[in-house]
Amino acid sequence: MSRRECVFWGWGEPGAGPSLPDHAAGFLRSELGVSGAVVSTPVSLEEVRLRPSALGDALRERLAGLAELRDDPASRVGRCRGKSYLDLLRQRAGDCEDAPDAVVAPASAEAVQAVLVACAEAGVAVVPFGGGTSVVGGLEPLRGRHDVLISLDLGRLEGIESFDDRAQLAWLGGGTRLPEADHALGQRGYMLGHTPQSYEWATVGGCAATRSAGQSSTGHGRIEENVVALRCATPAGELANLPVPATAAGPALKQLVMGSEGILGVITSVGLRVFPLPAARRYEGFAFRDFEAGWDALRGLAQDEMAPDIARLSDEVETRMSFALAGNGAKARAMGAVLRGRCVLVCGWEGSEVSVALRRKLAAKALRGAGGWPLGQAPGEAWAATRYAGPHLRDDLLDRGVMVETLETATTWSNLAALRSAVTRALEASLPAPLVLCHASHVYPTGASLYFTAFAAQDPDDPASQWRRAKLAATDAIVATGGTITHHHAVGADHAPWLGAETGELGLDVLRALKERCDPAGIMNPGKLV
Amino acid sequence: MSRRECVFWGWGEPGAGPSLPDHAAGFLRSELGVSGAVVSTPVSLEEVRLRPSALGDALRERLAGLAELRDDPASRVGRCRGKSYLDLLRQRAGDCEDAPDAVVAPASAEAVQAVLVACAEAGVAVVPFGGGTSVVGGLEPLRGRHDVLISLDLGRLEGIESFDDRAQLAWLGGGTRLPEADHALGQRGYMLGHTPQSYEWATVGGCAATRSAGQSSTGHGRIEENVVALRCATPAGELANLPVPATAAGPALKQLVMGSEGILGVITSVGLRVFPLPAARRYEGFAFRDFEAGWDALRGLAQDEMAPDIARLSDEVETRMSFALAGNGAKARAMGAVLRGRCVLVCGWEGSEVSVALRRKLAAKALRGAGGWPLGQAPGEAWAATRYAGPHLRDDLLDRGVMVETLETATTWSNLAALRSAVTRALEASLPAPLVLCHASHVYPTGASLYFTAFAAQDPDDPASQWRRAKLAATDAIVATGGTITHHHAVGADHAPWLGAETGELGLDVLRALKERCDPAGIMNPGKLV
Repeated sequence: MSRRECVFWGWGEPGAGPSLPDHAAGFLRSELGVSGAVVSTPVSLEEVRLRPSALGDALRERLAGLAELRDDPASRVGRCRGKSYLDLLRQRAGDCEDAPDAVVAPASAEAVQAVLVACAEAGVAVVPFGGGTSVVGGLEPLRGRHDVLISLDLGRLEGIESFDDRAQLAWLGGGTRLPEADHALGQRGYMLGHTPQSYEWATVGGCAATRSAGQSSTGHGRIEENVVALRCATPAGELANLPVPATAAGPALKQLVMGSEGILGVITSVGLRVFPLPAARRYEGFAFRDFEAGWDALRGLAQDEMAPDIARLSDEVETRMSFALAGNGAKARAMGAVLRGRCVLVCGWEGSEVSVALRRKLAAKALRGAGGWPLGQAPGEAWAATRYAGPHLRDDLLDRGVMVETLETATTWSNLAALRSAVTRALEASLPAPLVLCHASHVYPTGASLYFTAFAAQDPDDPASQWRRAKLAATDAIVATGGTITHHHAVGADHAPWLGAETGELGLDVLRALKERCDPAGIMNPGKLV
Repeated sequence: MSRRECVFWGWGEPGAGPSLPDHAAGFLRSELGVSGAVVSTPVSLEEVRLRPSALGDALRERLAGLAELRDDPASRVGRCRGKSYLDLLRQRAGDCEDAPDAVVAPASAEAVQAVLVACAEAGVAVVPFGGGTSVVGGLEPLRGRHDVLISLDLGRLEGIESFDDRAQLAWLGGGTRLPEADHALGQRGYMLGHTPQSYEWATVGGCAATRSAGQSSTGHGRIEENVVALRCATPAGELANLPVPATAAGPALKQLVMGSEGILGVITSVGLRVFPLPAARRYEGFAFRDFEAGWDALRGLAQDEMAPDIARLSDEVETRMSFALAGNGAKARAMGAVLRGRCVLVCGWEGSEVSVALRRKLAAKALRGAGGWPLGQAPGEAWAATRYAGPHLRDDLLDRGVMVETLETATTWSNLAALRSAVTRALEASLPAPLVLCHASHVYPTGASLYFTAFAAQDPDDPASQWRRAKLAATDAIVATGGTITHHHAVGADHAPWLGAETGELGLDVLRALKERCDPAGIMNPGKLV
């Protein structure tokens, strides 16, 4: 396959992608007390520890008859995990003993179905692999009660399967990566309107399986709002729903598949509402006295149906840090000095010239009325230029002995302050002198999401335990304060212990009953979600 | 209880509500060949046939200890069925042999839970009763494998339980009727923004249980878009979700409860996003050359995010009929003559003065550009004045020997013409010289709903079989053409045979597994949905 491949130990292609600017070293020193020098590097592929494949000859032959099968070390190591902090710690250390025994890549929905049936019969655990971008352990190579594990690579289910211009409805292969989907749609004058930070690698099916929210979801909607229909191959057969704009025909089965994270089956096709390519895009910044003033302004916009397509309000610390890392330009420095202690809101509008002009005018007026002062397009353009940079920079930070974790939640407007404060306190109490950043984004009439980034000097002896303590403290705080354990990163293995606190015992039981029905052999993505 | 009560054989309170205008007789004669004279009247309560209650003393005592219990004839007859055409045929004829053995009205969610546990232990079937407005047999008194049946009346779970002004989030008792909800919310400056034709009787919990769409759902969203959270008492315990604006924490369990139509449990509370009371409302009409031209215009609005809050496009027949029945005013007659063979689109905007003015201006410009000619506010006001009249008039039509059935579906814009034509043909082929009206409403970027009203001279000997033939033909046509079996009326008993065609066999099995888990004794609303 000629698809681009990510490095096995981090984000992006080898040697490509954004890096930390040179002047970041000073910032790391003053803020986190680390030297800024490279203290650790990932192992080479040759150094990775890998057990021989446990796939027997008979099974290998059977699966190879149904799909492309690869069991060379590079393939197994490259499909071993996702991209969570823990995943990267292990991959960088060459700890791939548990790697899948083979990577199996079927070429069609029917082939996926056949592979699942074969695996169910043989008792082989299956981890579906879309873009491989999970940051919550969604791809951990857990075998459950099975001895053999395969990674089911959806990479060959790609491209536009059918396109209905009149209904603005595109059927895409579940394994289609977002940039490729947008490229193909763009040739017809459309776009997905879905841009999570994992955009470069994430797949359409993976987004649906994890209830992804893109950076413009305030305007374009979360993935589940744009999935009109989908097809999901399960060991027990196919789950699919009619491509109709709305229905009252019973509980929404597509809403069960969305968020199922591979524990029921594999999303082979997604029927998505797509958006006309925007003639205009405008990103700009507004400053607010403090975080609360900013989110009150956002609340007003959301409740008056005037929210921009993109809305991201950084707290005081994130605002300070973004200027500090933005570069050494005199202009940025000056703006950073003026905005010290303030909060920057980035707004973005995309659409026709008329729509962007009109909506921007109304929103800008409301924001000024709510105490915001306009900063022009520079902060907006700066955000847009680095919108996918975060996970690339994480690799550089890991090299420099910095722990970096992102976590996100959502709650009602009334509960936002309490939630922010509880999570910040938990991170500050569980990490050594961390830097905790927060932004509010994805605004809704009833509430918003909060996204935290925590940096700290890495514990050189046991970074995994250090991370676990912080994760435990932060998630306990979220649950105790009534936030959701995840607004868009999904549950995976990392949040699974807390799912019951969110769904209740019967809710968990219902999910188990559902899994039992679709996957009686328990082969699908063991150890995730429930 | 002092709640208003509906007549047991029709819609509305005895002697109240809109009636057919005097000049309708001529129309009925010319269009359907019926005389227009009253040929049938409902029986009186005393004439209704009712078996003695099968509730034993011990069970009666146990349930009466948990909730208000009524088993007088009026209560049992009044909770015997919903308001489908078949329901009314039977109720008008006094056929209530199968009526529930008692009406049980708990005062709290905890009491509902206790009643369900008691019924599960005793093997008593339970039909939850909210507003009693089902038109799909959702309240048919089916006992399944049980000998005793109760109607679980949610009428005492009413009112605002809590209100969060900042988040514009109201928790309402599941049994709160929509007008009462709006009255209570109105005192705080808010409204539900949910106005189905059943508005006068429907309850908040009933709307959620059936995935209701109101007349303004194009603007305010279907009920499932506004339900932030809910609590559902099942025989196995409570299913509930966190009140957060969005989450990626697994499959959406609230989406399983919505549309479950009482087969899993009883929705006791609903946390709804509410809308500020609109300062302005404006309803107006536009005429189009034909139905297709009208829906092309609507499609443009929906895809450009400019759709009005209310959009209802009548086809040529419905347009003609609405003018014919509108009255004898010279103005209406003149407009009716001019618009013969044309289609009228009613648009409505609700919101702040600025929002209504701006959105109306943009939409009106686009509609004119798409070939619509403005008719001013008269057609819009006429629609608004009679927006809840339909089911009242049905009672008068039944008196006059007219069969009237409404059915609805939805599909993509590309498939709308084929679906309309298939359903119309099916109704015309299965009914004697019927009058088939259609309107498109509830528009979405990817498609729209189609709502059909069929009138025909009633078969005096076997009206139920006549209806069944038409229902079978129409629903088969819907399924064959790829429409959903219901866009907002729900499944009930009437559509249940076709649900598998929509969900697939595994989809149905998943629903059964879900029911098995929440209701192992199979007491909840037997014979509905699955």
